[in-house]
Amino acid sequence: MKGLCYMGTKGDIRLQEIPKPKILEPTDIIGKTVVTTICGSDLHVVDGALPYINETAKKSGRGVVLGHEGVVRVEEIGSAVKTVKPGDVVIVSCISSCGSCYNCKRGQTAHCLKCKDYAGWSKGCACILGAAMDGTQAEYVRVPLADSSVYKCPKGIPVESLLMLSDILPTSYELGVLDGNVTEGSTVAVVGCGPIGLSAILGAKSKNPKNIIAVDLDDSRLEVAKKLGANYTVNSGKQDVKEFISKNVKNGVDDLPGVDTAIECCGLPVTLELCERLIGVGGTIANVGVHVKPATLFIDDLWIKNFKLTGGLVNTTSTSELLEKVKRVY
Amino acid sequence: MKGLCYMGTKGDIRLQEIPKPKILEPTDIIGKTVVTTICGSDLHVVDGALPYINETAKKSGRGVVLGHEGVVRVEEIGSAVKTVKPGDVVIVSCISSCGSCYNCKRGQTAHCLKCKDYAGWSKGCACILGAAMDGTQAEYVRVPLADSSVYKCPKGIPVESLLMLSDILPTSYELGVLDGNVTEGSTVAVVGCGPIGLSAILGAKSKNPKNIIAVDLDDSRLEVAKKLGANYTVNSGKQDVKEFISKNVKNGVDDLPGVDTAIECCGLPVTLELCERLIGVGGTIANVGVHVKPATLFIDDLWIKNFKLTGGLVNTTSTSELLEKVKRVY
Amino acid sequence: MKGLCYMGTKGDIRLQEIPKPKILEPTDIIGKTVVTTICGSDLHVVDGALPYINETAKKSGRGVVLGHEGVVRVEEIGSAVKTVKPGDVVIVSCISSCGSCYNCKRGQTAHCLKCKDYAGWSKGCACILGAAMDGTQAEYVRVPLADSSVYKCPKGIPVESLLMLSDILPTSYELGVLDGNVTEGSTVAVVGCGPIGLSAILGAKSKNPKNIIAVDLDDSRLEVAKKLGANYTVNSGKQDVKEFISKNVKNGVDDLPGVDTAIECCGLPVTLELCERLIGVGGTIANVGVHVKPATLFIDDLWIKNFKLTGGLVNTTSTSELLEKVKRVY
Amino acid sequence: MKGLCYMGTKGDIRLQEIPKPKILEPTDIIGKTVVTTICGSDLHVVDGALPYINETAKKSGRGVVLGHEGVVRVEEIGSAVKTVKPGDVVIVSCISSCGSCYNCKRGQTAHCLKCKDYAGWSKGCACILGAAMDGTQAEYVRVPLADSSVYKCPKGIPVESLLMLSDILPTSYELGVLDGNVTEGSTVAVVGCGPIGLSAILGAKSKNPKNIIAVDLDDSRLEVAKKLGANYTVNSGKQDVKEFISKNVKNGVDDLPGVDTAIECCGLPVTLELCERLIGVGGTIANVGVHVKPATLFIDDLWIKNFKLTGGLVNTTSTSELLEKVKRVY
Repeated sequence: MKGLCYMGTKGDIRLQEIPKPKILEPTDIIGKTVVTTICGSDLHVVDGALPYINETAKKSGRGVVLGHEGVVRVEEIGSAVKTVKPGDVVIVSCISSCGSCYNCKRGQTAHCLKCKDYAGWSKGCACILGAAMDGTQAEYVRVPLADSSVYKCPKGIPVESLLMLSDILPTSYELGVLDGNVTEGSTVAVVGCGPIGLSAILGAKSKNPKNIIAVDLDDSRLEVAKKLGANYTVNSGKQDVKEFISKNVKNGVDDLPGVDTAIECCGLPVTLELCERLIGVGGTIANVGVHVKPATLFIDDLWIKNFKLTGGLVNTTSTSELLEKVKRVY
Repeated sequence: MKGLCYMGTKGDIRLQEIPKPKILEPTDIIGKTVVTTICGSDLHVVDGALPYINETAKKSGRGVVLGHEGVVRVEEIGSAVKTVKPGDVVIVSCISSCGSCYNCKRGQTAHCLKCKDYAGWSKGCACILGAAMDGTQAEYVRVPLADSSVYKCPKGIPVESLLMLSDILPTSYELGVLDGNVTEGSTVAVVGCGPIGLSAILGAKSKNPKNIIAVDLDDSRLEVAKKLGANYTVNSGKQDVKEFISKNVKNGVDDLPGVDTAIECCGLPVTLELCERLIGVGGTIANVGVHVKPATLFIDDLWIKNFKLTGGLVNTTSTSELLEKVKRVY
Repeated sequence: MKGLCYMGTKGDIRLQEIPKPKILEPTDIIGKTVVTTICGSDLHVVDGALPYINETAKKSGRGVVLGHEGVVRVEEIGSAVKTVKPGDVVIVSCISSCGSCYNCKRGQTAHCLKCKDYAGWSKGCACILGAAMDGTQAEYVRVPLADSSVYKCPKGIPVESLLMLSDILPTSYELGVLDGNVTEGSTVAVVGCGPIGLSAILGAKSKNPKNIIAVDLDDSRLEVAKKLGANYTVNSGKQDVKEFISKNVKNGVDDLPGVDTAIECCGLPVTLELCERLIGVGGTIANVGVHVKPATLFIDDLWIKNFKLTGGLVNTTSTSELLEKVKRVY
Repeated sequence: MKGLCYMGTKGDIRLQEIPKPKILEPTDIIGKTVVTTICGSDLHVVDGALPYINETAKKSGRGVVLGHEGVVRVEEIGSAVKTVKPGDVVIVSCISSCGSCYNCKRGQTAHCLKCKDYAGWSKGCACILGAAMDGTQAEYVRVPLADSSVYKCPKGIPVESLLMLSDILPTSYELGVLDGNVTEGSTVAVVGCGPIGLSAILGAKSKNPKNIIAVDLDDSRLEVAKKLGANYTVNSGKQDVKEFISKNVKNGVDDLPGVDTAIECCGLPVTLELCERLIGVGGTIANVGVHVKPATLFIDDLWIKNFKLTGGLVNTTSTSELLEKVKRVY
């Protein structure tokens, strides 16, 4: 079969012939890829930024198949798999997890202890697929721990929509909307309107907030943000965001300064620090971005605000909930 | 009557004769001070660090009475006061709050909107007593918004113990233990074992954690920490704290690195940054200290940890709960 | 002024001239009635069913003014009132509460301990207005404990809509939707589609449930239920409700029998018992109806279902949240 | 090997030679029984009360091994088992569950959808072991779905203590203490002081309630209740329980009538109805008993009380938490 492999050296990817995967563990399934996509973190892999993957890729002799997102048709199931059967079309979650270890039981499935040995988070990347083992950007894929890591596709919904449930929708929803405590009537700033930021806007919208303020340097992205539900857009290259909000946005109680939630979707010190400045009393800074540098924490301003700052890996514990949201649209 | 007044200039405090306070609002009470104490933040006031209080103190002609902690005997009540009557002995909460504004209703009583006009948090200090109006370090004190801001003393408990419920116990409990999500079986590091840190240990203890690790530079403070319930003590001047914990402390699941909660009780960048390094997956950094400088946020390490960082002012919403805990001891 | 008074004897109500009310407590306001309405429980009062009100009405010499729902323009405020001022138009909550007693602080405002002395819940009726003291069906009304018991009307919304926030919307929302744990994706049966049941459908709808099944004996009510958001309607006089649901309604996971929430809106044993039969594993029976007879609890069937049965008085703690929902419609 | 078998006819149990079990599914383990015990519900089985088990037992030709509680030494593991290995000593949970179906994911593990086909709850009994398949009262036992259904024993704790974690401790804790919302400062009545009631007292005690009132007809049971932590005991054959409580027990706020939580541990209409009468405003009736007859629900009294009534099967989701509590004792 054909697979898109990263060879272990920066920039070296090849679409090449590789052997079809086989069931190795009783909890595995083999799926035929229906649709797959590229994640921003695939670019980090190809960029050679993750030593563990470089090593794995080189050791294999023919690289490692990229990709941790996909909708697949189940071809074969391991002897312990109970929730899906051959012929089912399923969403492959970007996170593989056993469902029974200490971390899985407390909802930290991204930190599944069974997956520690494969690689994943303990080696600096969240996913096993496309990292410690061959991923979804191939004709067939072996998906481990299937009972806890795949979701049956409902009929009548385009697979391209369902594909968004592999990673981008749960990531922005769990880390931005849920950790950010976005609720009915909230005032929310989304800083960074790339794919993750736009998904955060979609997810936030489902909570019936009072205001969503989209912030970006690119006007065309802000246009899309508006279409997806932002009530306000601010080009932070042209305007002071805090000033804009304080002048234009009426939050729940009109005289209270600051937003309830600021969602960071860039992974840069400057945008995280902007989020710190935007929140009001009781507010939450929800970090979604992947960071490679420390930032400044203005704790001298924040300490008095009864604030919260959160961040982490997606646990994909919201996938079923999001699937219901997607179903209501169709 | 006698009152200890801060005159508005750094270091200038005087025990002097001032007029006895009178009921000004129907929600006021006048209390005769039974016992009062000094808070660390009184020292900031005397140090001239808060311009608003300097101004208030100077404008009054005879300074402002210090102190926001006290147990008082009720002498007189305003016409709207319903929960206490003359003769009752009550704890004066360090936070005055109306109980009916938007912030009070959502539990952010430290940010009571009615108190904004007096001064308080909107002017850079949490308390009204001993700041925007005369405080408790006098023979009599006018306590505003009494129905929401005082607590009847149960009989049979020394007033010196009850006095701790004005500020230090709720502060360390709400910001350290509750915001820090300390629960049964938790592993908790308390960084800084001054009065607030020791109180945090006491409060954490009531949640039945698995481990409490006390961290300080002073061995005698660590001795007290041990007596109050710390299982481990580390002198951070002599040992690397992270290394100590990783070698000596077995947390809930033995092979998981890091603590569940790190409580910052110093208000310094270096101790906050230490807390950032100590937590494990799913952990919380709970800031209790008052900070005057920014700190570094190691978001490049933290982003992957599904972490939380919290901080704020005490809302004194835990006072009744803590009163029950104190009652069980006697 | 004119007031509609219940004279203390079954059926004896009179629209008569009575003195305009005055401020009696510093927490009172006097409001000029803009709009008021009739609650089902006013009929119980007029029916002579509540001995305490009969007695109060007779003792007064000129009866007691009926009504606990209203929108009023503030004419005068007591000296302790801080949240409203003369000229404000406010919603009068059906529940009067102090906001600072033990019950108020734990959210049980319908059981306000300060109001126990007036009458209210401790005497078998939830409201003080139109019961222990003159109510809203008059030109002017004295509203006690105003800071905790009235809500400012936003501009641009018809007062007739806002009036629904006095009682019927919070009652059906708190006791039916919130206590019933209606969430995104839930399958909900509403048994009884009178005003309360229809309001419960509206409230449930705001939670994005998967299915709302409206049950009534009257087809015209079921028509309205459909317009307000019910996906299914069942006339329980013509069809077996449980059978209908099991045949026609696909709940979250298709093969799971029973509904997630059954909301009782009639106050009859037969409808409560129907609710008991409708729920599935993990389901909640949320009682909203006022009952005068015991019912049968089929605990022999229910015990195994991990079920919950709830009931109570409205606390009106959801009024602000509902006000935001109403604002979004206009 | 030897096994204690129920033959399918009321009263017919035999200790007989049967074949040693084998791994049948990759998620199975085979355990050598270290210690086992008898549950009250085993008596229902032997009494012939559960048609499904009668049928299973008869069909097998040699009956079905009784028992769903046990501590076993792992002899052999299926190919998909990851959390235990041969030689480990583990607690066998009374509930078998897959951990990945819809019900398991929402915490309703007692209603595991994978176990529906075996038998279990869908056939009128909660357990698979000792019901749909051979149980623990034999020399060896096959435990299905081991990763989600067994817990490793910590060293240094007697196996007789750990055995209590199979069923009786989680049952009384989850259904009585957690569902009953027992918290610090609560006033709790435990009605029925058999093994389940006594366990409920132990579990409630761990929450630091203010009062535990033990109710039974047998003075010697009440003696034990006192030793385990009850502050008050009432023999309901000699005294009116409600009157006793109202005269003798001071709850959190002295003038509030009724208990916060009433835990039913008998399974009889009369005791459930007593619980209904005991609770105060905001109270919870937590049913733990297994019922075979309907009871009366005094909804005409209860509707006004903002009450909750709960009941269900143990999900054993608290086992790890309870294991920590047990560890602290040793």
